[in-house]
Amino acid sequence: MNKDPRVQAATAHWSGRFVSNGVPLADFQDVTNSIDRWETWCEAWSARGAIHEELGRESLAGGFKLSAGQHLTVAGVCYHFGKFLFVQDPDQMQIAHRKAVECRNLALENLSPAGERVAIPYEGKTLYGNLRKPIGTDSPSVVVMAMGLDSAKEEMETNEGVFLERGMATLAFDGPGQGEAEYDFAICPEYERPIGAVIEWLSKRTDINSENLGIWGVSLGGYYAPRAAAFDHRIKACISLTGPFDLGACFDNMPSLTQAAFIHRSKAGSTNAAKKIAARLSLRGIAEKIVCPLYVVAGKLDRVIPHEHALQLADSATGEVTLNLIEDGGHVANNRIYKYRSQSADWMANQLNIY
Amino acid sequence: MNKDPRVQAATAHWSGRFVSNGVPLADFQDVTNSIDRWETWCEAWSARGAIHEELGRESLAGGFKLSAGQHLTVAGVCYHFGKFLFVQDPDQMQIAHRKAVECRNLALENLSPAGERVAIPYEGKTLYGNLRKPIGTDSPSVVVMAMGLDSAKEEMETNEGVFLERGMATLAFDGPGQGEAEYDFAICPEYERPIGAVIEWLSKRTDINSENLGIWGVSLGGYYAPRAAAFDHRIKACISLTGPFDLGACFDNMPSLTQAAFIHRSKAGSTNAAKKIAARLSLRGIAEKIVCPLYVVAGKLDRVIPHEHALQLADSATGEVTLNLIEDGGHVANNRIYKYRSQSADWMANQLNIY
Repeated sequence: MNKDPRVQAATAHWSGRFVSNGVPLADFQDVTNSIDRWETWCEAWSARGAIHEELGRESLAGGFKLSAGQHLTVAGVCYHFGKFLFVQDPDQMQIAHRKAVECRNLALENLSPAGERVAIPYEGKTLYGNLRKPIGTDSPSVVVMAMGLDSAKEEMETNEGVFLERGMATLAFDGPGQGEAEYDFAICPEYERPIGAVIEWLSKRTDINSENLGIWGVSLGGYYAPRAAAFDHRIKACISLTGPFDLGACFDNMPSLTQAAFIHRSKAGSTNAAKKIAARLSLRGIAEKIVCPLYVVAGKLDRVIPHEHALQLADSATGEVTLNLIEDGGHVANNRIYKYRSQSADWMANQLNIY
Repeated sequence: MNKDPRVQAATAHWSGRFVSNGVPLADFQDVTNSIDRWETWCEAWSARGAIHEELGRESLAGGFKLSAGQHLTVAGVCYHFGKFLFVQDPDQMQIAHRKAVECRNLALENLSPAGERVAIPYEGKTLYGNLRKPIGTDSPSVVVMAMGLDSAKEEMETNEGVFLERGMATLAFDGPGQGEAEYDFAICPEYERPIGAVIEWLSKRTDINSENLGIWGVSLGGYYAPRAAAFDHRIKACISLTGPFDLGACFDNMPSLTQAAFIHRSKAGSTNAAKKIAARLSLRGIAEKIVCPLYVVAGKLDRVIPHEHALQLADSATGEVTLNLIEDGGHVANNRIYKYRSQSADWMANQLNIY
């Protein structure tokens, strides 16, 4: 039986992202080897998630908090990747999504440093986030983390880690069209709005120094973060990981699963309507308003968002720009995280006066 | 051109070990895809090591200690895996080995928690080790870590981590036939001797609670550790990861690279002489002397040391035994570390009264 090209593409292109964000390599190998049809993807990953969830619950029962937090986080990541692009079956997607959130929530208080699930008021409803504070720092600086089209706060353990271990707090949250907020809110091209609500909320926390606030965004979040920085000058520094400068310009060439996810999460209802929304995800005439320091990662082998988009962002911003063009990096340079993850975190720490 | 079967075997069997011990997945994929002949293995990995070494030195120059420690550790692991089985070319092996040690040494003081290179007197010469103490604990309990046939202390970052984050100190050291000691000392079946020297040395450290001492051993170290525990009752608890009960009984069926490494590091000079030494690596009539609690990991798919060896150890010890038989685990269950790594560390913490 021939493999579904979507499963082939997953096998060929996703190992870096999955593993660098916490999926055990053997799980990735086993799942991609064991299934032929995309339709069984979510089920196979959910079964993996259940194994880690059970290990986590055993650890909890034994009083081993740290292990519990780690296993449950891996469980959450497995469930998350089961559903991250599974928009053709919204019911199955939502069941796996609930498990991802449940596991990560259960993990939070057991992690080191612990995390706190927070609820941020937004347009009459709620955006959920995970707030974590570094060990041994009073009133830490904070990095707001903007997800992409298919990432969600449950995938952020390893990305949070590099900021936390360098003395910064992290707030990974699901914005419009993302994670827990994708049901109430469609993708919002004007992402300065949810970010404004998040900063407003943070400014009321007495245990966080929201004056020293940076923003980080991955993939489509690599558009959202600089977009917010352009309009909201409370943001002191911005990291953009391989985001689009103009999503409309690359929509037609994106992988089919990515297009389908955009159509679903923009609640556009049709490809044509989705393209019109995609055209609004643009930094043309906007990037010039970015005056804070900006760190841009571009992967020259990026097959989702051509790297020229990142170059254009680096070229257009008004503030100081650090461009990290990774010659052998793909989308988000997930295959070369050692060429930017610690470096960008060190850069952020410098901007927020940690060192 | 056809791939050398040794490179094919490496590609098929080693991804779990490399990645779970700190090699970036893309590096593993790139190296195994890019070479056809085993003879270029060490060179290819050393080139990867050099990339990480440069990143580490850049971080050092920028004052980013944490990143420096991490990059240099990865560099050390890459150099280490370049040479770990490269016994057919001792000169090249030693050059890569020196780089592995140099990088890990440079990393040590920059890690969190920091490490200290220590020199332990042994039979008129020196065994080298890396001592690390957990953050925030005075006079911690300590886990002595016994390497195997091809592992060395430079490979231990992730294994040290699970003990350190649970409040135990670690001392990974190169014993006879291992790492830095392989030049001065042949493999020593009576491993209670070097372990005795290590415990003697530890007992003079006022910053370590050597009364609360456990031992951990991986692969051939999964023989060394229980061997030492049988003879040295200062050891309070022992973890054995997929070690041989009787190496002579499985020598003929070991992979050819493993056999070659044993012949080289036992300084036997011939296969027949090596087999005689292998026959001395046996717990027959000895395992019964183990009275401390023992945690045994067995991988049912182990193709290096049949899992029955671990079962026999579990069966023969006199003290309390916890057997973790991993149905889908290979050698060292490197493909299923989530089924034993945190669990065995929690078990050790319990034995050493950490929880």
